[in-house]
Amino acid sequence: MFRRLLSFSEAQEAIQKNLKAKPFGTEQIPLLEACGRVIAEDVASTIAIPPFNRSTVDGYAVKAKDTFAVAENSPVALSLCGTVNVGEMPKITVAEGQTAEIATGAPIPEGADAVVMVEHTERKEAKIFVYSAVARNENVMKAGADIKKGETVLRTGAVLGSREIGALAALGLAKVKVYKAPRVAVLSTGAEVAEPGKQLPAGKIFDINAYSLSAAVRENGGAPVFLGVFPDEKNLLEQALRKALASSDAVVTSGGVSVGPKDIMPKILGSMDNSKVFVCGVAIKPGKPVTVALVDGKPVFSLPGHPTSALLTFYLLAAPVIRSMAGRKADKPLEIRACVSTRLFSAKGRRTFVMVRLKREKSGRLVAEPVEAGLSGAITTLAKADGFVEVAENRQFVEADEEVTVRLFKGGLAF
Amino acid sequence: MFRRLLSFSEAQEAIQKNLKAKPFGTEQIPLLEACGRVIAEDVASTIAIPPFNRSTVDGYAVKAKDTFAVAENSPVALSLCGTVNVGEMPKITVAEGQTAEIATGAPIPEGADAVVMVEHTERKEAKIFVYSAVARNENVMKAGADIKKGETVLRTGAVLGSREIGALAALGLAKVKVYKAPRVAVLSTGAEVAEPGKQLPAGKIFDINAYSLSAAVRENGGAPVFLGVFPDEKNLLEQALRKALASSDAVVTSGGVSVGPKDIMPKILGSMDNSKVFVCGVAIKPGKPVTVALVDGKPVFSLPGHPTSALLTFYLLAAPVIRSMAGRKADKPLEIRACVSTRLFSAKGRRTFVMVRLKREKSGRLVAEPVEAGLSGAITTLAKADGFVEVAENRQFVEADEEVTVRLFKGGLAF
Repeated sequence: MFRRLLSFSEAQEAIQKNLKAKPFGTEQIPLLEACGRVIAEDVASTIAIPPFNRSTVDGYAVKAKDTFAVAENSPVALSLCGTVNVGEMPKITVAEGQTAEIATGAPIPEGADAVVMVEHTERKEAKIFVYSAVARNENVMKAGADIKKGETVLRTGAVLGSREIGALAALGLAKVKVYKAPRVAVLSTGAEVAEPGKQLPAGKIFDINAYSLSAAVRENGGAPVFLGVFPDEKNLLEQALRKALASSDAVVTSGGVSVGPKDIMPKILGSMDNSKVFVCGVAIKPGKPVTVALVDGKPVFSLPGHPTSALLTFYLLAAPVIRSMAGRKADKPLEIRACVSTRLFSAKGRRTFVMVRLKREKSGRLVAEPVEAGLSGAITTLAKADGFVEVAENRQFVEADEEVTVRLFKGGLAF
Repeated sequence: MFRRLLSFSEAQEAIQKNLKAKPFGTEQIPLLEACGRVIAEDVASTIAIPPFNRSTVDGYAVKAKDTFAVAENSPVALSLCGTVNVGEMPKITVAEGQTAEIATGAPIPEGADAVVMVEHTERKEAKIFVYSAVARNENVMKAGADIKKGETVLRTGAVLGSREIGALAALGLAKVKVYKAPRVAVLSTGAEVAEPGKQLPAGKIFDINAYSLSAAVRENGGAPVFLGVFPDEKNLLEQALRKALASSDAVVTSGGVSVGPKDIMPKILGSMDNSKVFVCGVAIKPGKPVTVALVDGKPVFSLPGHPTSALLTFYLLAAPVIRSMAGRKADKPLEIRACVSTRLFSAKGRRTFVMVRLKREKSGRLVAEPVEAGLSGAITTLAKADGFVEVAENRQFVEADEEVTVRLFKGGLAF
């Protein structure tokens, strides 16, 4: 079995090369349900928007040149030839010396080429007095001014938010083609792991990873399929893995990877038919025992059992794959510069990830403070952290007060 | 009817004072479905985590003092008294001169106070040779070291992501109390507005706002209820509003607010029973005609019909209310500093919001470039923008190259 510890960069490259993760299917869904999904096609408009020259104000449609003679206290009088309402094509034509009442959003009638705002007019029976000259096209939004017919409005890979969904609605689309969310099976291993919701049996701990990893799958555009907790027993685990592979597009397991007598997941992955293990241990801390394989053409991530290690290795190595499968483009991570509050040590020869909390000092300086170093089994380490700092493999430590890049866990932080 | 134009700050204050938006209900949901929801209670742990002193390595549980005599090339020999597996409470006691095999995560047996890593031992039949001294508590995670019994782990208002859900699972919670998502009715008005999904009738435009606003409601933690498009007709609209109020917690309408003959929404809101209009026009651009009322004790936002104005006024005035109703804390908006590419003019006496696109120049300078100024009816203005710049009421313009704050529409931008 493959056993050399890869460096973090080598692991990333091996994952990219062996998995070539990409979206694997699309579906048509109603536009109203598309918020947060990823569009799976370039969308070009089949219509011009607006579809006709429209008035941008309430007022009177005129021939602009009929208003050029307007001077201060000397309005021009035009005769009212009709009204144009919104939502209908005008049947009238505005001839020289004439004007038509028009509402915001209504099509400009034949013959007119500008609109005078109602505030600059006075109506006396069938005469409209215009007190302000307008230029051609003034207060007119030309057909196609917003979107031209044939113009590409959205490109494959865009995440659909309120603004993008508005643009698709403008084109008259009631449905949109999006990438299918990859189904990601999540299973926990370990004889000590008990399901939450019941009394905790003696000697056991509650299952954390299945819950945190399922949520992490969702955060990255996948659909988690929670399969349960399995003991560290080869046949049962292999069965569970086969079932997971049959029913989903990727598998994430946690536990059963340490170097002790229960080091079972890498062995199973190494011995299964149609399996290729290409990452088996990475020189990182925490998270060294992470194993990645391709089984039946599907990615399997075997993550450590420690909650912080499991979630961190998920963020670092599994999340980019699931994001690609969901059709999301690689997001540049949200980062911020801060000074470390204390010296941060690295694990010899391993890229070390130190969870930190950010604090703004009275002086205005932003400080990154490590969260309880040394408790890699702790779940609260991650819950209390705002992000992490990387210490490179070839550095012994980061000096106190040194400025570093903090990779943030989420946006919108109050700094 | 109330008619004075409020300043932007006055409008914000009036909304805060009159609506006092707060969450209006909670529900228990399964932890696996809680991703993205807001927790509605402080959660304290009813157990210590870990619940027992546990080994953090695979190795041998010992009395630390039995290893103090270890010197280089001079191991100490201990007799194996048993094995402690994970998931069960040990039945053995480690006496002086003894040791017990122990796996990562297993409870430390009675009598032992440290664990020697398996790598630092050698096994010869029932004797374990220890090659490295350990201090008391070395490789032991003490009960409660991660979370103490009674410790508050999460506080009301936290948004549940992978890390928070992991922490709740650790406590053994299979369900969690979250704030109910406010149901927000969305309705469009206008005779020119047609539903997407069909051929566009002459003189009409597709409904954009119902779709963009429904998505925006969702992005802010609400559950949109799309009620359809209604003509600008007083009785029909009032009926639709009453129906919307009966079936939801807040209402957002668009259109029917301009100063022309179709200025119908503010009039309806002003004349309805049990209604208080407290914002009716705000000195901002775009978005001046926005109206906000409290009807039957529920917020009603009447937004302009122009797609960009509708969505921007939603972001500025309605979103904070819906977020509060959803139990979300006020997020500080994501902002970035950039230089404007050209002079930005303000509308006289109105706070002006200029949509901008961000570009990184070769020199490294970040530049904010206005997106097609002057097309406030355009939907693509917003779809093409990365964020907006505010020009204060008392400024004529922002000079080209001046550094300004850009409020970003979303996180994770690639800069």
